[in-house]
Amino acid sequence: MRRGGKLNGAEIAYETWGELNEAGDNAVLIFTGLSPSAHVTSSQEDPAPGWWEQLVGPSRPLDTRKHFVICANSMGSCFGSTGPASTNPASGEPYRVSFPVLSLEDVAMAAKLLIAHLGVDQLEAVVGPSMGGMTALAFSVMFPKLSRGLLIISSSPRTLPFSIALRSIQREMIRRDPDWNGGDYPVGEGPITGMRMARKIGMVSYRSAEEWELRFGRERVPEERKTGDGFALDFEIESYLEAHANKFTGQFDANCYLYLSRASDLFDLADHGGSLEKAYRRVGPQRITVVGVQSDLLFPVHQQQQLAEGLSTADPSKDVTYVEMDSIHGHDSFLVDMDRLRPIVQDFFDRD
Amino acid sequence: MRRGGKLNGAEIAYETWGELNEAGDNAVLIFTGLSPSAHVTSSQEDPAPGWWEQLVGPSRPLDTRKHFVICANSMGSCFGSTGPASTNPASGEPYRVSFPVLSLEDVAMAAKLLIAHLGVDQLEAVVGPSMGGMTALAFSVMFPKLSRGLLIISSSPRTLPFSIALRSIQREMIRRDPDWNGGDYPVGEGPITGMRMARKIGMVSYRSAEEWELRFGRERVPEERKTGDGFALDFEIESYLEAHANKFTGQFDANCYLYLSRASDLFDLADHGGSLEKAYRRVGPQRITVVGVQSDLLFPVHQQQQLAEGLSTADPSKDVTYVEMDSIHGHDSFLVDMDRLRPIVQDFFDRD
Repeated sequence: MRRGGKLNGAEIAYETWGELNEAGDNAVLIFTGLSPSAHVTSSQEDPAPGWWEQLVGPSRPLDTRKHFVICANSMGSCFGSTGPASTNPASGEPYRVSFPVLSLEDVAMAAKLLIAHLGVDQLEAVVGPSMGGMTALAFSVMFPKLSRGLLIISSSPRTLPFSIALRSIQREMIRRDPDWNGGDYPVGEGPITGMRMARKIGMVSYRSAEEWELRFGRERVPEERKTGDGFALDFEIESYLEAHANKFTGQFDANCYLYLSRASDLFDLADHGGSLEKAYRRVGPQRITVVGVQSDLLFPVHQQQQLAEGLSTADPSKDVTYVEMDSIHGHDSFLVDMDRLRPIVQDFFDRD
Repeated sequence: MRRGGKLNGAEIAYETWGELNEAGDNAVLIFTGLSPSAHVTSSQEDPAPGWWEQLVGPSRPLDTRKHFVICANSMGSCFGSTGPASTNPASGEPYRVSFPVLSLEDVAMAAKLLIAHLGVDQLEAVVGPSMGGMTALAFSVMFPKLSRGLLIISSSPRTLPFSIALRSIQREMIRRDPDWNGGDYPVGEGPITGMRMARKIGMVSYRSAEEWELRFGRERVPEERKTGDGFALDFEIESYLEAHANKFTGQFDANCYLYLSRASDLFDLADHGGSLEKAYRRVGPQRITVVGVQSDLLFPVHQQQQLAEGLSTADPSKDVTYVEMDSIHGHDSFLVDMDRLRPIVQDFFDRD
């Protein structure tokens, strides 16, 4: 592990769609945001809709009839890959907080081992939204010759203090929940209240004030749905947060959340070379698209502009495109505003 | 009380500076934000600096040699005025959550009774930042003939769902702290963890990403100040939030906070007349200045623009000025960026 420690017999859960062609040059690797699994899109084996169902599949912008698409569940997560909720073979107990400090570089390294295992020695592109974009950047400086293309959406070469503040509060709410118990809770249980509160703060940082103004305004919860407590649900926006918190409950292991959240804060592309300028020079892919969303609070659009400019300045021979999405859905636009994102992804793969 | 219930023998704590002149036309009433006391500025009786020390005083923009300045601790607060932490004379016990639902109209009404008690039947101006601006608006429609001027800073005719979401999460953190105990804790004690977390979220909503980027960047806490826990303080921004949470602890009663926070969410100027347009027509003062701050997340600048336009459209004979502060300090600019606010307040009182 990049910051010390070692995992023995680590496993990476993954899914693939399409076939590697004979030239071996049509593989696309997708890194995920903090909470999704490797299930990007439906397949015969798993027909449930994936988190990018509209973008990835036959005849979709990332066309699985043409491309061999690979997605791993991030190292440190809890959807099949080894993470804090996994059993440490040395002790027979879950790692919990004895799991080594996680870096996005570790997530990138695990994916590199995965593609080698799949017989892929050259990628057409690495793609990542949000935390996945940071991991894709890490991958692109660590293995500069492995990929020809790089598509980064609503991401950042390093987290700003405003986003660290929000994540830090989320982590503190989890850690202060007595059911967290220093990380020592039965796997599958844990700090439900802390996770619910973290999710509510997450929703505030993932969406936008403008969207909520249009969607909820000052609409009230109907009397029959009120809980009676004078300080509880009253406005529809409160009910919406409650519904998202309920949906998240039990889905994600709290310790895994803490590790991945901290890994996002710790990531700094400048660690690769000493400064962002030097790191940009190490980025391998020639064809790069950086996508930003005007209403994103967590990874503000000026970060995407700086990233695209930095990459272009570092190597003017690169084909760097910056695209801004005029979406009101904030950071979550990459999951929600398919009508705006679809043509951008289409263009990226058409350019190849 | 506007939404039902009644208080017997309610008290309002207040401070005044300067003297009412013979014409009785130099009184200025200040409404406060959610958490400050009536101590706007220092005086002989209380030389401690007030929360608007640089703006109010002799030879300052609101000059107490010329104006008779009055500020009340909001009804429902805990700095001397009757609120949930006060003793209910009927029971001999603190009101706690048996306190009636609080509205900003109640806060305005209490201030109206106060100025009558002080012999003031005509105000030169009503002034309010943040929640105080909403209260000043309520006052201006409830008692349209009482004031000639109105100065509203970083406020709103009603709270947007994004701000309701943040306040709702803050309240939930307080209510979920076991030490809140349904509101039944010894006065002076209570849910310290919940209040600390609410304050941290508050800081995220009160300041701006830009300010923190310039001020903290990705600076780390020195090793000797780290707490050892891998998820605890690491970045300076986290240490800053911690310091603010510590400072707030024990200052503010949790039940009072819940009531005032909810009152801010509930306030809707449109309740006075049926729509904002109709409410604007009921606003009495002729000379109005609305101040917005570009980096304000809680009361975004477009709300101030709409407010100023609405007031001007409702009565084109009014003297309505809209001023935008190009400050990076977010919602808290009215407490922090004195160099930008000073001339605006000065201009407002010079215009009289």
